[in-house]
Amino acid sequence: MACMEWAVRTIQDALDVRLSIDSPNPAALRRGLEVHRGRALLDSINLEHDRWAGLLPVIKEFRPEVVALCMDDTGIPATAQGRLELAARLIDGLTDAGVPFADILVDPLVFPIATDSRCVAVFLEALDLIKARYPGIRTICGLSNVSFGLPYRAQINQAFLVLCLAHGMDAFILDPLDRRLMAQLATAEMLLGHDEFCRRYLTAARAGAFDFLHVRP
Amino acid sequence: MACMEWAVRTIQDALDVRLSIDSPNPAALRRGLEVHRGRALLDSINLEHDRWAGLLPVIKEFRPEVVALCMDDTGIPATAQGRLELAARLIDGLTDAGVPFADILVDPLVFPIATDSRCVAVFLEALDLIKARYPGIRTICGLSNVSFGLPYRAQINQAFLVLCLAHGMDAFILDPLDRRLMAQLATAEMLLGHDEFCRRYLTAARAGAFDFLHVRP
Repeated sequence: MACMEWAVRTIQDALDVRLSIDSPNPAALRRGLEVHRGRALLDSINLEHDRWAGLLPVIKEFRPEVVALCMDDTGIPATAQGRLELAARLIDGLTDAGVPFADILVDPLVFPIATDSRCVAVFLEALDLIKARYPGIRTICGLSNVSFGLPYRAQINQAFLVLCLAHGMDAFILDPLDRRLMAQLATAEMLLGHDEFCRRYLTAARAGAFDFLHVRP
Repeated sequence: MACMEWAVRTIQDALDVRLSIDSPNPAALRRGLEVHRGRALLDSINLEHDRWAGLLPVIKEFRPEVVALCMDDTGIPATAQGRLELAARLIDGLTDAGVPFADILVDPLVFPIATDSRCVAVFLEALDLIKARYPGIRTICGLSNVSFGLPYRAQINQAFLVLCLAHGMDAFILDPLDRRLMAQLATAEMLLGHDEFCRRYLTAARAGAFDFLHVRP
């Protein structure tokens, strides 16, 4: 708890940013939300009985945005349909508890591809199903889990980023200092029609965002 | 015609490969198919009246695989629905003429993103519609059109490749000597579940396919 308070205060004293508060310890999460200035992102609630029961009062009190993971006491479902069912229980449960729909970010949860060749396909299918059932729901995922155990993880994370964007992923837990990754993000966003007249891409290119490619156009 | 014959013979004398025969001149296409050993890929037919009338007899005679472009005498439709309608006329017209469904590759046609921020979104939507209407139909596209007029085209082509793969694109016109592009292809194929136990990815990694990344894992 003391660490959480120290971290939140120290970062917010130095930078004008909102933070994602993440801890397995509900008391530390509560302390982080108490000292956070502005609205925090709570990462994360899930359907495990103790986690749900412990965090719901905290969420009602501090009203952060909430990352909701598709898992319960039996673990993470192997199928896309199973993830959808957990997403539905999360979204319905949170909105029933008074959390605005717009404050929820669902994470369908991705496994390392090295453990199961089909796990990204299942994850992307789950993403499609969740977005079809709940139009407008926001989604999030961590990028780097997918590459665990394989060489050249940055290469895998980059390709996974674009696959997620192709399926409408809204937010990522990623390293904003990874220049290749951020270049990939700007490029895919342009291709997907989110960058009118390619303005942000061209601005990034002029600012040297693609200099890692070495070969000038 | 003499150039086409020379090119096909010269390449097939040197390499054991099948070729894609591409020319705006139907007589040159016919000559290419005549001298080609094995089955060629004809790139391409479309619904322009003269092109269709000129090539259909050639296709019936030589039975190549056929790339079919979603355009007619009025041009390329601006909407995904319009591309689907042309794809349907192409597939139905070719199969009615005796071309096996499995020999057709539909190209929904992509414009440069610099000309219209929505054009890739329309293209990917067309791809979805065509695959939904004709399950099992194969699709193809050229990668580099999309980046025309912008800096760092290789970066754009790479991200576009992954977006296309996410929507089930089956084949590409691409530069197989572009190592970054081929690494991206191997990575995305693995993530999409087409590389059991990550065998091809790991083999490529060990063979140095990702050495351009400089930083070793």
